[in-house]
Amino acid sequence: MSILIKNVVMLDLINHEAAEKDIFIEKDRISQIASKINLSPLTANTTIIDGKGKIALPGLVNGHTHVAMTLFRGAADDLPLMDWLNNVIWPSESRLKGEDVYWGSLLGIVEMLKSGTTTFCDMYFFMDEVARAVEESGIRALLSRGMVALDPVNGEKGLKESGEFIKNWQGKASGRITTALAPHAPYTCPPEFLKEVISEAKKLGVPIHIHISETLDEIKIIKEKYGTTPVRHLENLGLFEVKTIGAHLVHVDDEEIEILKRYRVGAIHNPQSNMKLASGIAPVQKMLERGVLVGLGTDGAASNNDLDMFEELRTASYLQKVSTMNSQALNAKTSLEIATLLGAKALGFEDIGAIKEGYKADIILVDANETYYYPRHNVFNLLAYSAKGADVETVIIDGEIVMKNRELTRIDEEKIKFEANKRGIQLVAG
Amino acid sequence: MSILIKNVVMLDLINHEAAEKDIFIEKDRISQIASKINLSPLTANTTIIDGKGKIALPGLVNGHTHVAMTLFRGAADDLPLMDWLNNVIWPSESRLKGEDVYWGSLLGIVEMLKSGTTTFCDMYFFMDEVARAVEESGIRALLSRGMVALDPVNGEKGLKESGEFIKNWQGKASGRITTALAPHAPYTCPPEFLKEVISEAKKLGVPIHIHISETLDEIKIIKEKYGTTPVRHLENLGLFEVKTIGAHLVHVDDEEIEILKRYRVGAIHNPQSNMKLASGIAPVQKMLERGVLVGLGTDGAASNNDLDMFEELRTASYLQKVSTMNSQALNAKTSLEIATLLGAKALGFEDIGAIKEGYKADIILVDANETYYYPRHNVFNLLAYSAKGADVETVIIDGEIVMKNRELTRIDEEKIKFEANKRGIQLVAG
Repeated sequence: MSILIKNVVMLDLINHEAAEKDIFIEKDRISQIASKINLSPLTANTTIIDGKGKIALPGLVNGHTHVAMTLFRGAADDLPLMDWLNNVIWPSESRLKGEDVYWGSLLGIVEMLKSGTTTFCDMYFFMDEVARAVEESGIRALLSRGMVALDPVNGEKGLKESGEFIKNWQGKASGRITTALAPHAPYTCPPEFLKEVISEAKKLGVPIHIHISETLDEIKIIKEKYGTTPVRHLENLGLFEVKTIGAHLVHVDDEEIEILKRYRVGAIHNPQSNMKLASGIAPVQKMLERGVLVGLGTDGAASNNDLDMFEELRTASYLQKVSTMNSQALNAKTSLEIATLLGAKALGFEDIGAIKEGYKADIILVDANETYYYPRHNVFNLLAYSAKGADVETVIIDGEIVMKNRELTRIDEEKIKFEANKRGIQLVAG
Repeated sequence: MSILIKNVVMLDLINHEAAEKDIFIEKDRISQIASKINLSPLTANTTIIDGKGKIALPGLVNGHTHVAMTLFRGAADDLPLMDWLNNVIWPSESRLKGEDVYWGSLLGIVEMLKSGTTTFCDMYFFMDEVARAVEESGIRALLSRGMVALDPVNGEKGLKESGEFIKNWQGKASGRITTALAPHAPYTCPPEFLKEVISEAKKLGVPIHIHISETLDEIKIIKEKYGTTPVRHLENLGLFEVKTIGAHLVHVDDEEIEILKRYRVGAIHNPQSNMKLASGIAPVQKMLERGVLVGLGTDGAASNNDLDMFEELRTASYLQKVSTMNSQALNAKTSLEIATLLGAKALGFEDIGAIKEGYKADIILVDANETYYYPRHNVFNLLAYSAKGADVETVIIDGEIVMKNRELTRIDEEKIKFEANKRGIQLVAG
């Protein structure tokens, strides 16, 4: 199976160029990029996509989410964090069953595919169900079972389930599924437990996905308990010796930024969630200047309230500009990079996030025909600052067309909306 | 001509309810709202719209823009303000001709209509051309010719042209066009000139539209020149005795907020432009708490880079939450209000911005069928925090359907994109 995309404007985020190209995909990888590719009769068994008038981008990488939380989208907004958790999210989550997580994950995956996300990094529970949704939908994902260890019994249960999940799913779905260990956060996982996780991660050869320094409350707790800050605390424990994906990192000082850089921690910025929950503004521009591997995520739809990475990258850019009072901060190209190539590196992927020969064929085609793509002064600026998720017309993941003309090829959108709607409402009603 | 919208979920922003209703429109106004409206044979000459599965909202009110600046969208981003103005915007604007402004205005109007904006408030030049675009497209607008009076000759020219513009266009297009006087800003219009404008506004009975306190540089200039802040300076001049629409008001202190409230100044918040140009964050939550008439605007597409009011109201909400570190700030309902009813009041309209009997029939129907409208926990939250401009399916303005199934009924979108693209590129190339 091969695909030839003809005459598409290709956004090259490595060389910062946009030019009309043909892109040839064989099996799961991009095999050739050229001004003109002529197929020999031998490769005639090829799907040809007319890319004229379209823009090809690497698929977007959502670096941190809890995809099944789409079930709670908009159920309760504008509440203080603890009210929101205590009265809505936690009671609803306590009623969650595996099937709910399956349908909620599919709902979120439909939304992600339809707005150009081809890879997501998730932390939740009932992860077999999330993996099943990933396998069926055709998306790529780095999945992890969140572990809270305030009660040691829960910690051990989490670690056991995580081990089983990794054994069952690592490399599955033709390699689209990879896995991680996910201790929830330094304030919900005591040091002894984190040490156990570190040793297990080394043994299993998987990365660690963890929330770090999301709120000022967390900083206060860690300071009181351990006399230091979350990043230093985790460094002291040796956690960063394992490839780490750190979500949020809102409240970090200069020395902590150096630590993140030194250990090549993937720092996943979630601007809309951090704004909506009033957590704070991460110093992303500074992190980028110091060479930290910055990625971009939506966080869960309960605190966003969508999974639209185009909205997210725009918000990231504008938020850095105003918070640093520098209109040059997080420019168009860099905001596209943290949503693609740099975001992929932050998750530890070395062959996704760019349209490049040899890379995985994760490509989206944007129909750049709405008024806000005119005048066509600069394609990078238009993509970063005007484009909408709804303009994504075709999605290719791992060399397979999973959306064509906004129709998903593998899963039934109407059925998913119906099921997820019913289950979400039941869960919140209690 | 009358229109009956059947079985639509109507967002009532006055009573904060969402329920299925029929809405009957006669001529330019909403004449009846009820659970079920049965037409007598006498009113049979009625267009019936099936609203099932759709959500009806009052049309969005874009309180501050420079619509023809769509011509410069994305031409130069991520630059320091003065580089951007000196090297790109001002040279391009110096080449502008009336026909360019006409096509650029149409480009922006298409974008606004297709994302649910039914009224906009504009300040630019070649305003006859903007008015022509408004008249033809069916949108509603409050238009004003921007006046810069650093050179008194320019000031007088501006005032003369403004007077003619007001005389020619006030109340035209069946009342869809209203007008204002627009001294650009306190730092570009000396006190003597502003006094002349105030007296002229009183004579003509039109409001004043002016930029106020957008940047820290402006604050510095006004302080150096007049020993006070922009809001106090304008109060001292008596400007607020005329109904004033003040754009930006980013840097204002508590006492200035009281002044804005006392004079019922419409304070138009432009969050994305203020973020992108690194101007600062307006204290909107505080203004709302103190009872200021807050509206919402996109500013021009050269500094946004789109005219999407759904994106704008979401950004406004999230930005207030994070800047006040209070997740309850600018909640879903209030962010919808500043984009509709409150925004209309800020511009001085008393009969638009709500779906209410007797109000002007400016209504949009949103097709709430994408995944991000599920689960259907809370329609207000979904509209504020998930909805996209592209979901607007039908637009009614002044009792006329100007967009149906995303097709504009009065103007030719393809031709507009073609012409505006050509002209925008020529203008920037020089």
